[in-house]
Amino acid sequence: MRRWALQGMRGAWLVGVIGVILWWQLPAHAQARAETWGAKQGSVCIGCHSQQNVALVQEWRIGRHGQAGVNCFDCHRADKGDPDAFDHNGFLIAVIVSPKDCARCHQKQVDEQKGSHHAKGGQILASLDNFLGEVVGGPPAVATGCMQCHGSQIRVLPGGKFDPATWPNTGIGRINPDGSWGSCSACHTRHAFSVGQARRPDACGKCHLGPDHPQIEVYQESKHGILYQAFQDRLNLDRRTWVVGQDYTAAPTCSTCHISATPSQGSTHDVGERISWTLRPAISTKLNMIVYEDLWKEDVPEGTPLPQVGESRKAKDGKVRKVSRVLTWKQRREKMQDVCSQCHAGGQITGFYKQFDDLVELYNEKFAKPATAIMGELYKANKLTAAPMDEKLEWTYWELWHHEGRRARHGASMSGPDYAWWHGMYDVAKTFYLHFIPEVKAAAGEPLATQLLDKYVFSQPGHRWLKEGMTKEQLQKIQDFYRQRYGGQN
Amino acid sequence: MRRWALQGMRGAWLVGVIGVILWWQLPAHAQARAETWGAKQGSVCIGCHSQQNVALVQEWRIGRHGQAGVNCFDCHRADKGDPDAFDHNGFLIAVIVSPKDCARCHQKQVDEQKGSHHAKGGQILASLDNFLGEVVGGPPAVATGCMQCHGSQIRVLPGGKFDPATWPNTGIGRINPDGSWGSCSACHTRHAFSVGQARRPDACGKCHLGPDHPQIEVYQESKHGILYQAFQDRLNLDRRTWVVGQDYTAAPTCSTCHISATPSQGSTHDVGERISWTLRPAISTKLNMIVYEDLWKEDVPEGTPLPQVGESRKAKDGKVRKVSRVLTWKQRREKMQDVCSQCHAGGQITGFYKQFDDLVELYNEKFAKPATAIMGELYKANKLTAAPMDEKLEWTYWELWHHEGRRARHGASMSGPDYAWWHGMYDVAKTFYLHFIPEVKAAAGEPLATQLLDKYVFSQPGHRWLKEGMTKEQLQKIQDFYRQRYGGQN
Amino acid sequence: MRRWALQGMRGAWLVGVIGVILWWQLPAHAQARAETWGAKQGSVCIGCHSQQNVALVQEWRIGRHGQAGVNCFDCHRADKGDPDAFDHNGFLIAVIVSPKDCARCHQKQVDEQKGSHHAKGGQILASLDNFLGEVVGGPPAVATGCMQCHGSQIRVLPGGKFDPATWPNTGIGRINPDGSWGSCSACHTRHAFSVGQARRPDACGKCHLGPDHPQIEVYQESKHGILYQAFQDRLNLDRRTWVVGQDYTAAPTCSTCHISATPSQGSTHDVGERISWTLRPAISTKLNMIVYEDLWKEDVPEGTPLPQVGESRKAKDGKVRKVSRVLTWKQRREKMQDVCSQCHAGGQITGFYKQFDDLVELYNEKFAKPATAIMGELYKANKLTAAPMDEKLEWTYWELWHHEGRRARHGASMSGPDYAWWHGMYDVAKTFYLHFIPEVKAAAGEPLATQLLDKYVFSQPGHRWLKEGMTKEQLQKIQDFYRQRYGGQN
Repeated sequence: MRRWALQGMRGAWLVGVIGVILWWQLPAHAQARAETWGAKQGSVCIGCHSQQNVALVQEWRIGRHGQAGVNCFDCHRADKGDPDAFDHNGFLIAVIVSPKDCARCHQKQVDEQKGSHHAKGGQILASLDNFLGEVVGGPPAVATGCMQCHGSQIRVLPGGKFDPATWPNTGIGRINPDGSWGSCSACHTRHAFSVGQARRPDACGKCHLGPDHPQIEVYQESKHGILYQAFQDRLNLDRRTWVVGQDYTAAPTCSTCHISATPSQGSTHDVGERISWTLRPAISTKLNMIVYEDLWKEDVPEGTPLPQVGESRKAKDGKVRKVSRVLTWKQRREKMQDVCSQCHAGGQITGFYKQFDDLVELYNEKFAKPATAIMGELYKANKLTAAPMDEKLEWTYWELWHHEGRRARHGASMSGPDYAWWHGMYDVAKTFYLHFIPEVKAAAGEPLATQLLDKYVFSQPGHRWLKEGMTKEQLQKIQDFYRQRYGGQN
Repeated sequence: MRRWALQGMRGAWLVGVIGVILWWQLPAHAQARAETWGAKQGSVCIGCHSQQNVALVQEWRIGRHGQAGVNCFDCHRADKGDPDAFDHNGFLIAVIVSPKDCARCHQKQVDEQKGSHHAKGGQILASLDNFLGEVVGGPPAVATGCMQCHGSQIRVLPGGKFDPATWPNTGIGRINPDGSWGSCSACHTRHAFSVGQARRPDACGKCHLGPDHPQIEVYQESKHGILYQAFQDRLNLDRRTWVVGQDYTAAPTCSTCHISATPSQGSTHDVGERISWTLRPAISTKLNMIVYEDLWKEDVPEGTPLPQVGESRKAKDGKVRKVSRVLTWKQRREKMQDVCSQCHAGGQITGFYKQFDDLVELYNEKFAKPATAIMGELYKANKLTAAPMDEKLEWTYWELWHHEGRRARHGASMSGPDYAWWHGMYDVAKTFYLHFIPEVKAAAGEPLATQLLDKYVFSQPGHRWLKEGMTKEQLQKIQDFYRQRYGGQN
Repeated sequence: MRRWALQGMRGAWLVGVIGVILWWQLPAHAQARAETWGAKQGSVCIGCHSQQNVALVQEWRIGRHGQAGVNCFDCHRADKGDPDAFDHNGFLIAVIVSPKDCARCHQKQVDEQKGSHHAKGGQILASLDNFLGEVVGGPPAVATGCMQCHGSQIRVLPGGKFDPATWPNTGIGRINPDGSWGSCSACHTRHAFSVGQARRPDACGKCHLGPDHPQIEVYQESKHGILYQAFQDRLNLDRRTWVVGQDYTAAPTCSTCHISATPSQGSTHDVGERISWTLRPAISTKLNMIVYEDLWKEDVPEGTPLPQVGESRKAKDGKVRKVSRVLTWKQRREKMQDVCSQCHAGGQITGFYKQFDDLVELYNEKFAKPATAIMGELYKANKLTAAPMDEKLEWTYWELWHHEGRRARHGASMSGPDYAWWHGMYDVAKTFYLHFIPEVKAAAGEPLATQLLDKYVFSQPGHRWLKEGMTKEQLQKIQDFYRQRYGGQN
């Protein structure tokens, strides 16, 4: 008996030590704000839910929140007047925990996320993508597809329940009932909220994949992804701080390059901060960033005059704001190169960027600008109806830039050769020559087709092969190669 | 010396304890049937094969079979008269271990598997898929492709060897020489037969992947798959019992939802038991299940009158059987929702099912039913030959439902937004508008084409955009969006 | 104090033991050549780079090189006159470490790699692939795409820097400034150079993936890949020797079958050594291999007369060499089957090869040979221009064999049913019937089209279904099947 008692005492002592360690593990913000959590009501929640949803509660319990005593009610409590507040067995709660709620403890992270492209993900309601989703597909396709990544605009039904056309949803730019934009659990998955899980590439891969932005596939085939597969156990993914070169050295994840800290720069929850090119639109541009005092951000293409810090100006959404910071594309690139340099020497980095820039320029100049210009001319000449996507050429052009052209650019941006070429430039070229040009001819008719193609396409030396073919010598060289290399056949 | 002797004794004692523990780890069935294994002949097998196929024997040895003393001969022994029995160095054995053989120890599992869709996987010999495989492709494509998942009909050659057109094969619905259907090693891979391996999503991914049923891809991009990647080490995959909420809480695998136990329901080897919609055919329906006394099962669409338990009736295969159980689609769904509820609160579950149902209905009503009806009319009007797949439109229709339509439905069913939309409804819509409709026009000619399209397609409001375009206001809104959001370009 | 001193002494003793163990862990070559490393200059490199590129240095440090004292200067030192030598803070170094450099310690491995297909990967400069890359795509697409796998021809600029159009590059057949071919770091990723990392399938997957040679995808869906996922922790991937059946038994990686040792054969860095079919060209053949005294190798199709060992002869590149070894396709296959037999009994192996051979023959005879013959006739009859890829039919034919036909063959070669069928023969058949034949008709016109199709296509019974359709009985059987199996719908 006595031995057990002693052990019990030792146990208590141990719990104390662990408590101190856990406390130290908490973010600084959190340490300063212990009064914001530990609501007594939480134990009542756990009483039922540990029966009804045992795994949910258990994951919370072993996660950092559970270990630190941040409980159900701390996050889900609502205030009277909250649009989605409802009475749940005598407690006023809300199902959705919005960034505003998370900011009670994680203000810095929410501030960084505010105004970022991620936070604006739900603002595609009037875009061409949305037309495709809502009209060409149909609303349920938007609910299970588009919105699950972009975020829905949550509609609260009488009684505090949500319209199931908009919920469940953890899209990154969710428009919450409290007016905030975003969903922290898009990456920090419920209910363990493990920071290590969010740092894994899979977290990003939920949305950054597929025909139109295959970042996860590019990463997986890159050396970065190969090293991650081999050495993920050496990455200390669960550490509180996670500084490349200090906490780990074996491989980068998406987070390493786009979010996490280096010895010389802090982490950021604005995932676009270190990105110098936009690879999203039909034609890529380098982007400078303007940050306003209210944390609203906007990107402006290289070349657009930049405001002064302190200046008040009308932002793109029409609201007048004071500029608090300007980050040029060069500064953004320097931030990324600082990450690169933890593992790569300078020549490797500048060489990489030269290859990447060249690929984007090739895509822009040889394919994207001519195709975009021709589309504009066809609309102007009424050779295409104003309605989007009701003509084959419109789908061809759309996939040329939105799918294939992005894949090429993303492949080059993250060293995935199969995406740069086969899923990228090969597909771009094939679509351009085999589909776009013939469909332009069909839509424009003569003499407009010839005029347009001569002006925008065949004026470029890079397209002349299509008209001029190859010389006999060039052809002979190809045949000789196959004979020597493989003993015959192509 | 003496010390070693002592250690030897301790060792013996330890072996005894481990033996007891291992015994306890065996399934109850197995405990009751120790007489069915431990054949003396086994040691002779091991004598040669541990030289010739060292890794095979070693994997068996460290697996639960090897540890428990279930040996080669226990599983591979044959009886005189077995069609594939042959003399192997004086022992009568068979290469194939069929479900009938496994049932000697694992009766419950084999009983559950009997009559399931999995067990019937080999019965596609007269299907359109098989026509594609055998005739359009060719028999070797069936042997290396279709049959490796569906299962071959094993043909025994004189002398007990198998026709290599049908073997090697571990397809899930293999038609074995002893008349049984199935292959346990389809999932429980030889020769470790690790239960943990079979519970991993990869086990299912051998067949549930690709253009026509990408379940593994959908899973991988879903939150479920993301959690699995992050926390697989916390799943206790190798435990004998594996009850979600008790043995693990961090993530579900395919097995969690479709096979394994919850605190309130047992495990089942009928993988279809908890599935309420069939997402397989051109048009989805909800399915009720009838189970017969001989464990034969069949699904009937919602709405078909259901028999009483105890009633004798002619099953679809013409055989008269007694009904032993009826499971409605609602009961099947409740079984699945019981799994969901281990991790999710109720509103999340009903909201998810609403979104999923809506997507299936959208697919059914907007695309599948019109396309199917039009195809029927074209055959009736002799605008298509009766031969399958000899006309382009037939391939277009086939891929519309068999590939793209399934991807949409599977994406929605397991929360994979990229599959619900880009690989799913986007592809369905694109094929429908860009290929199906023009090919219908070409095949039907006027006036039939217009009649059919007006009747089945343009009668629906969801298709009117194609004829009516967008208003100027709608177009303006799209342009305004791009200007505000991105500063210009689409 | 005294206690710490004692510990220090113990520590020294421990370091000694670890040193001996590490020494023993080094390859035999390396042990014999300690004088080739440990350059004093190395510590200066580390002085700066452990600040500038901390993760790079740390990875090197914990890798086997770092542990054994092989330092930066040992690998990067250059000789005067080396084309890429440059002065770096007083040290003459080169950025690229070529196979010639690695051979200082790893002669055997470099000798094996020499003359292999891998080493020749950069020799595609005059191929059709390269025409596609350079001309149809554009040089930056080659730099970020093709060359990142195949290897670039490094161009050294004045001052020892590299032309960024050719560097950074770790393509497997890189043509180095010193004239050597290859890049060891293509697989043995910098700067840990972990042998375990190189043995993982992901290492190969950087290049062996995608539409034209999806080996990694095939592996991942195969039983081999499924076992790897489940049991990678049991593979002892980091051992110095890695003999299947001795060092591991749970699963094969790419390396197991194509590179690593078995109890009865050594490892080889000629990844083609155990391959009996070439699945690369339009029409597959079995290949015998001729090895010359200078380690140059060439493959010749089965049927080509083979030289005697010791004979001098003109190789395909025109150089006269002495034959040192001839390896027939049967011997190559026996080498692979020796690997198979570690895990599989004989009947499984011969059955597998029969199914694989049959699939290749089906592809060859039914699709590849007819299509290739027809293309030849069309060029001869001037129905196609001599310029490559300026006509749709040329793209169709190219993808038929280079993409789809390879996928079918690769799928069958490594037991990936989804690739053998859906991404393989299904796509081959679809392209052949739906695109190739109609485009041949359009290009050839009548009567040539009919002549060609009758001669090469419809003369084969396997193609007659397209003309003759199905009997009413056959159609009825299909309909009956769906009624019985699913209660109706296809």
